[in-house]
Amino acid sequence: MEKKTLGNKSLLYPMPVTIVGADVEGKPNFLAIAFIGIVNANPGMVALGSNRKHHTNKGILANRTFSINIPSRDQLEITDYVGLYSGAKIDKSHLFEVFYGKFGNAPMISSCPLNLECRVTDVLDRGGLDEIIVGEIIESYCEERYLTGGYPDVEKMKPALFSMYDNRYFSIGEYLGKAWSIGKNYKPKDPV
Amino acid sequence: MEKKTLGNKSLLYPMPVTIVGADVEGKPNFLAIAFIGIVNANPGMVALGSNRKHHTNKGILANRTFSINIPSRDQLEITDYVGLYSGAKIDKSHLFEVFYGKFGNAPMISSCPLNLECRVTDVLDRGGLDEIIVGEIIESYCEERYLTGGYPDVEKMKPALFSMYDNRYFSIGEYLGKAWSIGKNYKPKDPV
Repeated sequence: MEKKTLGNKSLLYPMPVTIVGADVEGKPNFLAIAFIGIVNANPGMVALGSNRKHHTNKGILANRTFSINIPSRDQLEITDYVGLYSGAKIDKSHLFEVFYGKFGNAPMISSCPLNLECRVTDVLDRGGLDEIIVGEIIESYCEERYLTGGYPDVEKMKPALFSMYDNRYFSIGEYLGKAWSIGKNYKPKDPV
Repeated sequence: MEKKTLGNKSLLYPMPVTIVGADVEGKPNFLAIAFIGIVNANPGMVALGSNRKHHTNKGILANRTFSINIPSRDQLEITDYVGLYSGAKIDKSHLFEVFYGKFGNAPMISSCPLNLECRVTDVLDRGGLDEIIVGEIIESYCEERYLTGGYPDVEKMKPALFSMYDNRYFSIGEYLGKAWSIGKNYKPKDPV
C-alpha cells in the first residue's frame, strides 16, 4: 500500500511521560517532558529536548544538573499541569515533596515511583524549538514496592505513555513477550 | 517510604521498540533499538544509543544516514530476531521488503507502520557501551490506514514498548486523557 509523507516531524511512538526537575534561582522547578530517551549504557545516559523558552532550562544550564521523575498514571493531572504552566509565571516549588541526592541541586519528586539524578554532559543547539540536553545518570532512586527482582517493574510503577500530535496519554497494556528471546522463534524465509 | 539506590543504570520506562536501518557495505542491515527518543521539534530530531560493536553503526557512520522503523506488535518476533543476531554474522538484507526515500541509502521497512528517514548531525562518544547518534528526521512515511486526522494513531499502528533489565515487551494500553488539557483540572493545594 502506498505510503504518505508526513514531513520532518517528531514522530516516535510511544514516548515516555516524565517530569524533569531543576533548581532555578534556588527553587525547585518542574516540567513535563516526553522528548527523551536513553542513549547509553554503563553509564546510563539520557538525551532530551526542552523548548529553549522553558524556565527549567535556565536551572539545568546554570547548575549542569537535573532530575528525571517517572510519574505513575495516578499523577497524570499534576504532570500535565506542570507542562501547561511555566515556572516563570507560577511557583511550582511547593507542588511536590522534594528530596535531593548526591548533587544537592537536582530536585527529585518523592511521590514519583522512579527518580534519575543526572549531570549535563552536552548541550546541543541545532536550531528548531528545543535545546538538546545530554546527561549522565549518576544515581537512580526507587522504593522497594516498585521493584521485582531488584529492577523497576512497569506493572507496579504504572508509568504513562504519550502519543505526539494527537496529544493522548495511554497506560501500559498487556505483556507481549520476552526480549532477546522471542526472536529465536522466528524462522527467516531465506536461509541465512 | 524509603527509596533504594539502583546506580547509574539506563532506567527509563517505557522505551519505544524500533528497528534502525542502514546500508552497510551496500546492503540493508537492521537492528532493534529501544535506546532512542525525540530531542527536537521543527525539525524533528532523534537521539539514539547503539552499542559500538553493532554492525549497523558502520553504515550509519559511513553514510551519515539511517532509518527508524516502528514495527507493530505483530512484528515483535522479527524485531527481536534482528536484535539477537548481528549483521556481521547473518545477512539481514532479505528479511524485509525495503524502500528508499530522499537519500537513497537509508533503507526503510515497507511493512512497518511508520518510517523515519534521518541524517546524522552529531556522533558523541562519552565512554560506556554505546555510540550516541543524533539525527534530523528529514522525512516520515506512513500508510493512510494508520492515520487519524492526518497523524499516526497508536491504536491503529499498535507499536510495542520495551521494559529494560527485565526485558519485557508490552502493548499500548487504555486511553488515559488528553495532554495539555487534563492538567487544567488540577488544583494546587498552595495558592499560586
